[in-house]
Parts: sequence; C-alpha cells; structure tokens
Amino acid sequence: MIAAGEGEREHGDDEQSVERMFECQEVPPWTQQLTLRSLVVSAILGFFLSFIVMKLNLTAGIIPSLNVSAGLLGFFMVKTWTKLLDKTGLLNQPFTRQENTVIQTCVVACSGIAFSGGFGSYILGMSKKVADQFGEADNGVNMKEPSLGWLICFLLVVSFVGLFSVVPLRKIMIIAYKLTYPSGTATAHLINSFHTPQGALLARKQVSLLFKTFGASFIWAMFQWFYTASDGCGFVSFPTFGLQAYENRFYFDFSATYVGVGMICPYIINISLFIGSIISWGILWPYIRGKQGVWFDASLPESSLHGLNGYKVFISIAMILGDGLFHFLLVFFRSSYDMYNKRQRKDTTIPFADATALVGPCLSFDDRRRSNVFVKDQIPTAVAIAGYVLFAVISVIAVPFIFPQLKFYHIIVAYFIAPVLAFCNSYGCGLTDWSLASSYGKLAIFIFGAWIGMDHGGVLAGLASCGVMMSIVSTASDLMQDLKTGYLTLSSPRSMFVSQVIGTAMGCVIAPSVFWIFYSAFDLGSETSGYPAPYAKVYRGIAILGVEGLSALPKYCLNFCAVFFFLSFAINGLKEAAKYKNWKIYSYIPSAMGMAIPFYLGSYFTIDMCVGSLILYLWERADKRHATVFAPAVASGLICGDGIWSLPASLLSLAKVQPPICMKFLSRADNDKVDAFLSG
Amino acid sequence: MIAAGEGEREHGDDEQSVERMFECQEVPPWTQQLTLRSLVVSAILGFFLSFIVMKLNLTAGIIPSLNVSAGLLGFFMVKTWTKLLDKTGLLNQPFTRQENTVIQTCVVACSGIAFSGGFGSYILGMSKKVADQFGEADNGVNMKEPSLGWLICFLLVVSFVGLFSVVPLRKIMIIAYKLTYPSGTATAHLINSFHTPQGALLARKQVSLLFKTFGASFIWAMFQWFYTASDGCGFVSFPTFGLQAYENRFYFDFSATYVGVGMICPYIINISLFIGSIISWGILWPYIRGKQGVWFDASLPESSLHGLNGYKVFISIAMILGDGLFHFLLVFFRSSYDMYNKRQRKDTTIPFADATALVGPCLSFDDRRRSNVFVKDQIPTAVAIAGYVLFAVISVIAVPFIFPQLKFYHIIVAYFIAPVLAFCNSYGCGLTDWSLASSYGKLAIFIFGAWIGMDHGGVLAGLASCGVMMSIVSTASDLMQDLKTGYLTLSSPRSMFVSQVIGTAMGCVIAPSVFWIFYSAFDLGSETSGYPAPYAKVYRGIAILGVEGLSALPKYCLNFCAVFFFLSFAINGLKEAAKYKNWKIYSYIPSAMGMAIPFYLGSYFTIDMCVGSLILYLWERADKRHATVFAPAVASGLICGDGIWSLPASLLSLAKVQPPICMKFLSRADNDKVDAFLSG
Repeated sequence: MIAAGEGEREHGDDEQSVERMFECQEVPPWTQQLTLRSLVVSAILGFFLSFIVMKLNLTAGIIPSLNVSAGLLGFFMVKTWTKLLDKTGLLNQPFTRQENTVIQTCVVACSGIAFSGGFGSYILGMSKKVADQFGEADNGVNMKEPSLGWLICFLLVVSFVGLFSVVPLRKIMIIAYKLTYPSGTATAHLINSFHTPQGALLARKQVSLLFKTFGASFIWAMFQWFYTASDGCGFVSFPTFGLQAYENRFYFDFSATYVGVGMICPYIINISLFIGSIISWGILWPYIRGKQGVWFDASLPESSLHGLNGYKVFISIAMILGDGLFHFLLVFFRSSYDMYNKRQRKDTTIPFADATALVGPCLSFDDRRRSNVFVKDQIPTAVAIAGYVLFAVISVIAVPFIFPQLKFYHIIVAYFIAPVLAFCNSYGCGLTDWSLASSYGKLAIFIFGAWIGMDHGGVLAGLASCGVMMSIVSTASDLMQDLKTGYLTLSSPRSMFVSQVIGTAMGCVIAPSVFWIFYSAFDLGSETSGYPAPYAKVYRGIAILGVEGLSALPKYCLNFCAVFFFLSFAINGLKEAAKYKNWKIYSYIPSAMGMAIPFYLGSYFTIDMCVGSLILYLWERADKRHATVFAPAVASGLICGDGIWSLPASLLSLAKVQPPICMKFLSRADNDKVDAFLSG
Repeated sequence: MIAAGEGEREHGDDEQSVERMFECQEVPPWTQQLTLRSLVVSAILGFFLSFIVMKLNLTAGIIPSLNVSAGLLGFFMVKTWTKLLDKTGLLNQPFTRQENTVIQTCVVACSGIAFSGGFGSYILGMSKKVADQFGEADNGVNMKEPSLGWLICFLLVVSFVGLFSVVPLRKIMIIAYKLTYPSGTATAHLINSFHTPQGALLARKQVSLLFKTFGASFIWAMFQWFYTASDGCGFVSFPTFGLQAYENRFYFDFSATYVGVGMICPYIINISLFIGSIISWGILWPYIRGKQGVWFDASLPESSLHGLNGYKVFISIAMILGDGLFHFLLVFFRSSYDMYNKRQRKDTTIPFADATALVGPCLSFDDRRRSNVFVKDQIPTAVAIAGYVLFAVISVIAVPFIFPQLKFYHIIVAYFIAPVLAFCNSYGCGLTDWSLASSYGKLAIFIFGAWIGMDHGGVLAGLASCGVMMSIVSTASDLMQDLKTGYLTLSSPRSMFVSQVIGTAMGCVIAPSVFWIFYSAFDLGSETSGYPAPYAKVYRGIAILGVEGLSALPKYCLNFCAVFFFLSFAINGLKEAAKYKNWKIYSYIPSAMGMAIPFYLGSYFTIDMCVGSLILYLWERADKRHATVFAPAVASGLICGDGIWSLPASLLSLAKVQPPICMKFLSRADNDKVDAFLSG
C-alpha cells in the first residue's frame, strides 16, 4: 500500500459502520444492477441534462457539476416509477442503491460528453464564423464547419479510449491509494442515505443531519443567487481579505461545495493546496507580473498565453505532469516487479496491483466489505488493453479521415501520451476534486499545433487534438469518480463500467444532436445572437498562438516549467523515501499535485477547503467520535445541496430569469465616484 | 405581581444558579461598593468616553451604546490597579463585581450627558451659525450662542430630575414587571463572568461560552466594518429580502447585538415588534405614501415632519404614550389602593409597591437572593419626591433666567409631564432595549414651540424644552438599565443611585467642557469644517415647523394618533382583563409598547430580534435544559462583543481611518449603468 497518508480517513469502529446497516440487504449481481428501467431513466435524464449543459456552454461558457443532480433525479424518477408499478402489482424488482448508482453513472457519462465534446469551445472554434473574427488563419485548411455526421463519428471514435485507459488502475486508485474523490464520495453518501433501511438510531441521525445540511446548503446557494445580477457580483466575489488579496484571488468565496470538499479531503491535501496558492498567487505571479514589458509584452490581454497566463497554464501542467508521471512510473515498475517476482518464484505473494491483499482483518468492516465487492467482479486487464488498442486503431484510421490535417502518426503519438495524462487527471481529481481536462486540452493544442504548423492546418489540427485529449482525460476522471461512488455503494465495478460505456455511447449521439438543434436554430458564436459561446474564441486564439511553437511562450517560461517539473519529482521522491524509511516527517510532506492545482485556478477554493479543514479540526477537538461519525454526512450535505441548486439555477438561466440584485464590492474611491454618478 | 407574562424567563433549578457560585462571597455594604478608586477610574473613563461621544455627535451624529465598553474598561483598569497595589502590599480591599457595576454606572451616567446634553443637536441648533442656514427665525429672540457657563448651569439644573422621577418605581419595573433591559442584563452577565469564582464546572462552561461568543461577535463586527466605506454600504444595508422590502426597512442587518437582544427578550415582545413592523412599514406607511400630494405636500424632503415622517413620529409616540400612561395609571391606582387598604385595616398585606411580597419560596434561588439584596438598601420615596421637587423648583427659577423665552409656568407644565414620559421611556427600554429619548424631545419641541410661538422665541424655547425633556427621559432609562445590572450583580440600589448621581454631576461638567474644546477649536456646524453636526440642522428644522402648531401636522395625522392611542389603551385593558380572568388568550396578546417601537425605527431590528427568538426556540426544542443554562451567556456575548467593537470603531473614526471597501447593493438596472460608467 503506497501513499496511504494521502488516503481517506479511517472510519473506525464497527458500531459506526454504514455497511452494517445494509448487511441484511443482499448485493444484487451486476447484471441485475443494470436494469432496463435504469437505462431508460438515464437516457431521459441524459438528454435533459445535455440540453442544459449545451445551453450554458453556448451562452456563458461555464458549466456546473451535475453529478448530484443526476443521482437525485435518478432516485426520484425510479422511486416514482416503482411506486406506480407497485400499486398495479407489476413490480418485480425493488429499487436498490446499486441501481441508483448505475443511473447516476450513466447520466453523468452521457451529459459529460456535452461538455468534453467541446461544442462551445474547440468544435465551434473550427467554424468559419469564429475564424473570420480573427485576422489570421482564416483559410480553408484551418477551418471546418460542424456537421452532425462527422461530429457523431468523431466522438464515438475518441470517447471510449479514456475509459479503457484507466479502468485497470481502479484498484490502485481507490483501494491502494484510497483517493477521496470528494464529489463521488458525497454522491455515494447521498445515495446511501436515500436507501438506508429504517432502524439504526445512529444511521437515522446521520441521514437526518445529511438532509439538514443539504437543505441549509441549498437555501444558502439559492440566497446567494439573488445577489449575482452580473459578473463580479455576489458572495463569490466577496473580497474577504481585502481588495488587493482579492485581485490575487485570495478570498473566501462562501461556496458550501468547497467547504464540504475540504472536510472530506485529508488535512495534508488542503495544506498543500494552500501552500501552492501562496507560492503561485502570493509570490510567483506578482513577481512575474513585475517583469511585464521585460519578459513579455505588456500590451497583451490577460488571457493570452504569451503573457502571464502562459506561465500559469504551463507551470501548473509541468508540476502536475511531474507528480502524475512519478506515480505512473512508480505503479508501473512496482507492478512489473511484482509480476516478475511471481513468475520467478511462483510464490503466493499477492501482487501489488491486485489490491485483494488489502482485504485483511486490520481494516474496518466497511472497508473490508467494500473492497471485497469491489474486487469480486473483475474487468480483466486484457479486456481493457484490447479495448484500448481496438479504439486506438480505429482512431488512427478514422480521425485522419475526418481531419486530414492530422496524420496517422500524430494520433499514434497522442495515444501514447493520453494514458499518462488520463492517469494524472484521475489522480489529481481523486486528491482535490478538480478535473483539469481543459488544461490538458490546451497542452495538446500547443504540442500538435506547433508540430503541424500553420500552413498545414496546424490551427485546426490543434483544435482537433484538443478534442481527442479532452475526451480521453475527462471521461477517465469521470469514470474513476463514479467508480468511487460505486465502491461506497457496493456497486459492481463491472456494472459501473458497462453503465459508463452505455452512457458515453448515448452521449455521443445525444450531445451532437442537441448541438445540432441549437446550431440550426441560432446564430452561434456571434455576439448579438444571445449565444456568443465565448470559449470558442478563446480556444481558437490559443490554437493560433500554438502554431508558433515554443518560441511563442514568454521568456523563462520553459525554465520555470522544468524547475517545477523536477521539484514535483523531488517532493514525491522524498515522500516515498520518508515512507520507506519510516521518517516522522513523512506525513508533513505536502502533495506536489495538490500544490500545482491552485497555480492555475487561484486560491479562493483552497481557502474554502482550508475552512472545511478548520471546521473539521475544531469539531474533532471538541468531540472526536462525534466528528468521525457525522462529518462525512455534513460534508456530503454541503456538497450535494450546493450541487443540486445548479439545476434550478440552470433552468432559471434558460428561462432568462436573471437575479434582481448585485452585491458589489468597490474600493472607497470607486464608491465615491459611483455615488456621485448615481445621485447626479 | 402584574404582567409577569412579559417578564424574564425563569431560570429554573438551583443547580443552574449564578448566585450559588457567589454565595461564599459576602456582599459588601453599599458604602464599600462606592470606593474612591472607583470614582477616580470613572472620572477618567467618563472623560475619555465623553470625548468619543462628543466627536461622533459633531461629525456623523450617530452614537453607539457604550455600556459594555464602560463595564469592560472599568474592569481592566481597576484590575490592573489592584494588581499593582497587591504587589506593593497596599491593597486593602479586593475588587468586587459590585464595585465594577458602580464604575460602569458612573461612567455611563457621565458619558450619557454628552449625548443627552444635545451638543450636536439642540444646543448647536440654537447658535447663530446654524440659524443663518435657514431662511426664517434667524432673529435674536430665536438664537442663543453656546457658552460654557450657562451650559453647565443648565445641565446641572435639568439632569438630576430624571433620576429622582423614576427611582421610586425601581421595584415595580425590575422585580414586579421583571422587565428584561437586555443591554443591562448582558452587561451584568459580563461583569458576573469576570468575577466568577473558580470551581463550578457549569459556571466555567458558561463563562467560556460567553467569551467565545463575545470573541466571535467582536470579530464579526470588525469584519463588517471593513465593508462600510460610506453610507448604504456593508452588511447593515443588506437587502436580505430584496430591494423593495429593504426600502420599507424589512431586512436582516446581521447585527449580533439585536440577535442577542432577541434571545433575552421574551418571545411575545419580539412577536409584538414584528407585528408592529408589519402594521406600520408593511401596511400603513405605504398606504400613507400613496396619499402623497393629497394628504401632504409631495415636494417635502423625507425628514420633514410635515410629510410622512410626521405620521411616523407622532403615531409611534401616541401609541407609546397610550401604553405608558396605562401602566402609569395602573401603578398609581394600585399603589394608592394598597396604601388606602393598609391605613383602613392596618392589616399585614404587603402593599403592591413594596415588592418584598415577591420574595417568596416560589421563586428560584437567584431571584430570591437578588430581590432580597435589591429591597434591602432603601431609597425612601420621600427622598425621591423631595429631590424631584427641589430640582423642579430650582429649574422653575433658573431655566427662565437662562432662556427668557421660557416662562416659569412652561417649566412647571414640563415637570408635570416629564415623570410620565420618563416612566414610558424606562418601561419601553426595559421591554425592547430601545431608548426613544429623542422622540420625546421632538414631542417637547412641538408642544412648547407651538405654545410660545415664533414671535416670542418659540423656536429657541422649543429647543430648550427639548433639552429639558431629553435629559429627564434619557437619564431615567439609563438609571433603570443600570439598576437592572445592579440587581443581577447584587449591587445595592443605593450605591447605584449615588453612583449615577455622581456620574451625572461629573458629566454636567465634563461634557460641556469637552464641547467647549471642540467649539473653540473648530468651526462647528458648517459643512466644510469636518464637523457638520448634521442633527443640529435637523432639530432646528423641527423647531421651526413646531412653532406652526398642530396645523403644521399633515392631514389626518392627529386622527391616526388618537386611534393608535386608544388602541394601545384597549390592548392593555384586554391584557389586564385576560390576566384577571385567567383567560388562556392572555399570553398571546401582544404588547402595545412593543408594537409601537418599530413604527418609527423600521423593521430591520425586529427581524434581528426574531432571528434571536428563532435561534432560542430551536435550541430549546433541541435541548431545553442546555438552552436555559447557556442561552443568556450566548446572548450576552453577542451583545457585548458587538458593543465593545464600537470603541475601536469610534477611535478609528476619530483617527480618520476609513474602511477601505464598500459592499454595495444595486438593482440589476443600476448595476448595468454603474458597470458601464466604471469601465468607460
């Protein structure tokens, strides 16, 4: 077992066990978890949520996480269905939490394509309308009009690879590394709560607390909504530590989600995030900003990769890659070593990669039971590899047909890099709940755009490879998040995987179709249409820069990247050494991945998460046992309540209902000006 | 015992008793509570706080309550003093909570004069500089320049009458009516906490909870400060229920003080306040505003008593007077009846006014002990009456010397009305924590201004009579608030009274002297001087309107006043009847006084107080015993923490340190305009 220090907190005594309560319920075989009704419900919800995601994609460009909504809506739809059937006497199968998890997984996979399909970003960025808004690269070879046919084909070809690439790592991620996947954990708590059998007092208390926190968090999110009339309004823009700190993204943004996530993540992760924010937003970025005009052109817009933003994106990716690669290599060499030992000595040592070794009496009842179920239904590694190779081969043949600018060897290279990036993203997501798919997409734009060059359609090739990479990386982390939910609800990994595959397939048809409706009906990508799709321009802009290659990066950017890449390696090496030698320092070494995440995103969410840690710490100090039993319920309630509000919020936004009030934060000088303006 | 339903909640079992903890400490005789060092400390603090109050008076015009600061600073100063003396071996007397209370009382009395002396309002309103800013009444007979001599004389003459007028009612207010006086109660809890002997676990927990809430409340108040760069900024302007509700003053203003006050006040009072807000700000004022242009001139400024503000001030006063007069008459007739019975039958029935009747075994240990101490040191009613008559006679002679516009018969009339108003104010303050001294002052301006008329100096006479009335009414409620603190800290009412008298005497010299420093150094009352004293103009404006008499009131205002006056009488009559007949409805009849307070002030604080009630209700539902023991500590912490912040806030304001950020609330339309303005 490696990196257990970064793992989930042990839940302790059996008396606090969740699975004890479910003990009398048999776990249905995986084929019974995947019912017809669950697929029908998933398709309906998938279509519904895809529609919402697509609309938001094409208008604001910001998409909320809909995991929780999927779980909740799935529950209520099947519950109503079974109740109706129950009355007619036709019900032949009760609704289990495993089936609920299957629906949630399928819906998330389906609606996830509406995001990772990039309809508001790279796909639309290929179109003539967006290309015409730039002065350059508006020639035929760098443009491609969307059309339903190639969109579906392209998505079908690239979307499954991600699933096959990480599924063999599931036991390492979830059982050995014990990664938290906070959203997945929260969804699992919610689903478990819905299906908890009546009886146990402690469980009733937990469920009741979960729903109370859920309600409070939902109401809080709703309350916040009223004060966000436009950008820069509302609690999310609260300069908690003053305006200057706010400009460097140091503020507490009152998000219940990240406070909850902070309560689920281990302390060391939250501390790592915080250290990372201080290094980047507190020291490094202000320093680099001071070099404006020297290291890079001062007249560039904020979002340009030529300027400060370039440092942010590439340094954070370098550090994440350093950490991810370290763990990837570690897993690879350990597994190989295990297998080598096995063959040499034919001994009975259970290999590292087969996490059944961990199902021992030293674990809590919950962990033992969950691990047992999780390792029972195998997905043979051979199947995963075969699947990956099959889809890779299809892609190598098909993608160059769709995008002639990309040659077969480009795709082969992409499919060699992809598993590493997929691993990195799933790993980072497990630690911190952030999926950085779009960052990896930007990296792909840069690599392939520069390789192919402007004249050979590098801009289009960059956007297309961005699509390939984002699809792989994003579906990989979604799968692992859902597998964590499955682990905590005793769902079979096999049913999870199949459900994810079916959901992805649905998404590959539904998402382009929904996009096609919008594309036919509205003038997408133009400012005046109400569907400006802001990210389409951003992505094309990045691609145009990308074709210039490494020389386009601002000064010393690569040097910084190299430093942070090796720093990341060094931290991990130190951590492994400390672990091996049992140094006390081990549990105080921060996580490089954790430090890298805020480099790009800013510090606000790290402060939320530290607040979560602080709450948990004070709670544990006041009453350790109470905290251990109830903190996961409270954290899940916080995450889920905030998450479910995104559904009505999205619907309000679709209905063009805007919040009535702006809570604005002005410096005193600005305020005086505004007061004078408003009164006169 | 009357109106016990409105009284303080019973604290229940002896095990939760505060006085049990202090049982081993002897209560020092009243002469030892009044030590020389306490007077020295009081004089120093009194001067310091008077300075702060005066400065705020002359700049912003808004004065925070400094009760808690006085208690706290007094504690730390004497504590340091005794520690120093203890080291030198010279300490001959330990520092007791009674001595602490005496200091608090003396300091509040002293710095209270800086407010009720009206240096920023009626005194400066008499000056030529302010008079010249109006187009009318700027003749000699309606002006008087401030001068140190007459200011001290005037204050010395009028400031003691209030004390003598209510002191005979102390037992009725505090023991019989069990009025809560939330600020006084909170200060007492704080003082008790400082002096709690070590030992009892429950007490340690209470004290620790009080200080935790104190700290949280202080930090919250400090945090709020940063966002209040100017008017209309910060949490105090948070349109919690939307902008339209905010305009009608329905909002939760995040004030820890009033949430704490709400936790101390009985439920029925908070509900009455809320009902009052709905009747006034929800129904009546919007209706009257609809009559703008019909009932009153639409072009009048908001603050004009000719317009909507006139309805607000006079209807609320009418209702308060109705309630106050009812109770005044009730007390008067009951006492007379008791005394008549006593004389007739020479029986042993203990008269109503002598609240020793209440010191029976049916009360909790705390109540019995406190009542015993409270009734032990008598202040004979004869002394009070003699004092009142003495000062009245001096005033009747002296005031017309200072203000020739006021004749002796005016003063006699004023001194007949004053005790009723003083009673009303003390009673209302006990119920809701609000002292409405300035409202009574405005009433006096109106009555005497109209009576005397413009030509005979009615404007000046109005302002002077406002001073007489405010001094009486304000010192009366201060005294009663402090007597409540004294009651809860086992301080002798006699030492309280003497301390209040000494503090008032100090204030009558210190406050005019401090004012004189400002008056000599700065150009008070002019917009450009930094000392605009905004209320000086407001008061003179009211006085100028006042001389026009009843005809100056807007249409139907008097009719409304009459209706609400009698409504108030009727509600009280019903309540008394219900009590007498033991009707169940009794405890659900709202308090007319409670309903009237928000008529003038708005609903925001009633919502705070209802939030306090809600918290207490939920707490009691979750754990009744826990809530009973700890709620007063939490409430006191909330009130005191917020209260003590006003001290550093005042100092910051004196040092011209302004908050850096404005948290502003704009409608969406306004926000769009502002965004365009700021970016363009």
